[in-house]
Amino acid sequence: MFQIKAPYLLFLGDAPDQLAAKTARGINDWRPENVVGQYRLDGCQADLGITDMNLTAAKAAGAKTLVLGTANRGGVLSENWRGILRDALEMGFDIANGLHNRVATDPEFSALAKKLGRKIFDVRHADAPMPIGTGEKRQGKRLLAVGTDCSCGKMYTALAIEKEMKSRTMNATFRATGQTGILIAGSGVSVDAVIADFMAGAVEVICPANEDANHWDIIEGQGSLGHPSFSGVTTALIHGGQPDALVLCHEPTRTHMRGLPHQPLPSIDDIMQTALWLAHVVNKDARFVGLSVNTSQMDKADVAGYLASLEDQYGLPAVDPFAHGASKIVDAL
Amino acid sequence: MFQIKAPYLLFLGDAPDQLAAKTARGINDWRPENVVGQYRLDGCQADLGITDMNLTAAKAAGAKTLVLGTANRGGVLSENWRGILRDALEMGFDIANGLHNRVATDPEFSALAKKLGRKIFDVRHADAPMPIGTGEKRQGKRLLAVGTDCSCGKMYTALAIEKEMKSRTMNATFRATGQTGILIAGSGVSVDAVIADFMAGAVEVICPANEDANHWDIIEGQGSLGHPSFSGVTTALIHGGQPDALVLCHEPTRTHMRGLPHQPLPSIDDIMQTALWLAHVVNKDARFVGLSVNTSQMDKADVAGYLASLEDQYGLPAVDPFAHGASKIVDAL
Repeated sequence: MFQIKAPYLLFLGDAPDQLAAKTARGINDWRPENVVGQYRLDGCQADLGITDMNLTAAKAAGAKTLVLGTANRGGVLSENWRGILRDALEMGFDIANGLHNRVATDPEFSALAKKLGRKIFDVRHADAPMPIGTGEKRQGKRLLAVGTDCSCGKMYTALAIEKEMKSRTMNATFRATGQTGILIAGSGVSVDAVIADFMAGAVEVICPANEDANHWDIIEGQGSLGHPSFSGVTTALIHGGQPDALVLCHEPTRTHMRGLPHQPLPSIDDIMQTALWLAHVVNKDARFVGLSVNTSQMDKADVAGYLASLEDQYGLPAVDPFAHGASKIVDAL
Repeated sequence: MFQIKAPYLLFLGDAPDQLAAKTARGINDWRPENVVGQYRLDGCQADLGITDMNLTAAKAAGAKTLVLGTANRGGVLSENWRGILRDALEMGFDIANGLHNRVATDPEFSALAKKLGRKIFDVRHADAPMPIGTGEKRQGKRLLAVGTDCSCGKMYTALAIEKEMKSRTMNATFRATGQTGILIAGSGVSVDAVIADFMAGAVEVICPANEDANHWDIIEGQGSLGHPSFSGVTTALIHGGQPDALVLCHEPTRTHMRGLPHQPLPSIDDIMQTALWLAHVVNKDARFVGLSVNTSQMDKADVAGYLASLEDQYGLPAVDPFAHGASKIVDAL
């Protein structure tokens, strides 16, 4: 499992727009205490509104890891970027790479990191063999976000719940299962990059038995049971995650599954019923504790009524954690 | 996807007992027309009851591929075995390897195969990048075996249904998703060896659109929705397989999930309901067409009554295809 040293210098490179830097933005939004500054090249159109720094300034500010938190143009590492990565390793930085391109196995960087004793984390890929999952009961409590679709707010929901729990001095840990989450948490495994036989085992490694029986692991969900491309990963997360509590994440304005124009959305009821049956295979006490609704695309006038109707229908709190925080969900635990 | 040339010489090596040669036995049981003989070493305790041949005799009989169809002692390739593999490549054989140990990436065999133009298939591993699944409707019909547990007869059921269909001159193809199935079929992908993001896509590659709208792909199932270690693979098979017809496979004497003494068996009803919901995500017409019961561990006096009670309960044919063939299931299609 990746273990990345904070604090970070966030490399935005020559990001063509704000959206291209959304991974870096997520890190800065959720773990500002782990960020010393941003490193932007000429032409960069993204700006996190934090201090601009080069490698020397960031080193002086205590940064331990250079984070590639933006997409690179054309999908290849330019010579310009390569020079910066080389300098970073020489100056004592580890590198955490959120790109699809691997850096750790690049012959030059691999040799340089080995010579210098630095670490390179390709967080979109799996870094180590994982065990086969067992489903054996583990101490501690776990909460998992499941969704009616991909990219409907599962990571955001988990982070908001962790934040709310910590504000109440509950013992809670966000557990990352995808690249942005790993860069935010500083550890985790990209479950979708693991070999199929070992997916559930990887999730068990991510949220292991906790010595505090009241500790909550808040597990980032992936995919959807109703998404034909990635439903197997979702199933492995439910069985490996062994959740006590499930939160249903939903984006009400979608007209089809993300990336699949031919694929209709599943109903909230169906996802809840199927997820709950799967969860009961490994934890008879699993239950839904709330609905998390991404209302960003809704007409603002409709939001309150829609959330109230969900609360009425399911007898559970329904909130948009971005707009309202996650306190109603944590209350329901 | 692996494409292995028949006919085969089945290498039993020094198998310590009949069970160690069960992969070779499966090939010979289901595709005897693809087998020229067996190759046994001194001390081999397995015997398929077919002609013993060395490499020279098998070559003369037309064999194109040497199949490693038994487990090797101690999990390493002995020098004795290595010499035989070397000879086989030199004599013009491809190698299909059902062991966990890789042969294709062994430096010596890799170089030799490349020099000689031979192919080596490590069928427990994935050989090529796979696409991400889409769930788009494909022409042709598909049947998938799903189970209440692992190793309860899903491959056998699929092969028996294919055999019955072919005996009726229906257009049908067994589609292999695991190592033994691949060696039997001569093609396929070990879905559990694929990276998680690409599992459903791999299944779509295995059972692609068919130009004959009445053609049946009979897809080998894997794992179980109720098995915490491998349920994600099962989910990907349902979504990638896009089945029109599902067959429920069950072994009624199990007291816990295979390999997991703490894990109770799911009910037939729950597996059918959950599998059907998942299948409907990609195919609204999916339905169960029968139950396939592995009665080998049952008291023989109880079998007929048990099958009759299942037929009564589910309104579907219930058969042990090993004992009774699969004709009642094919009738129900």
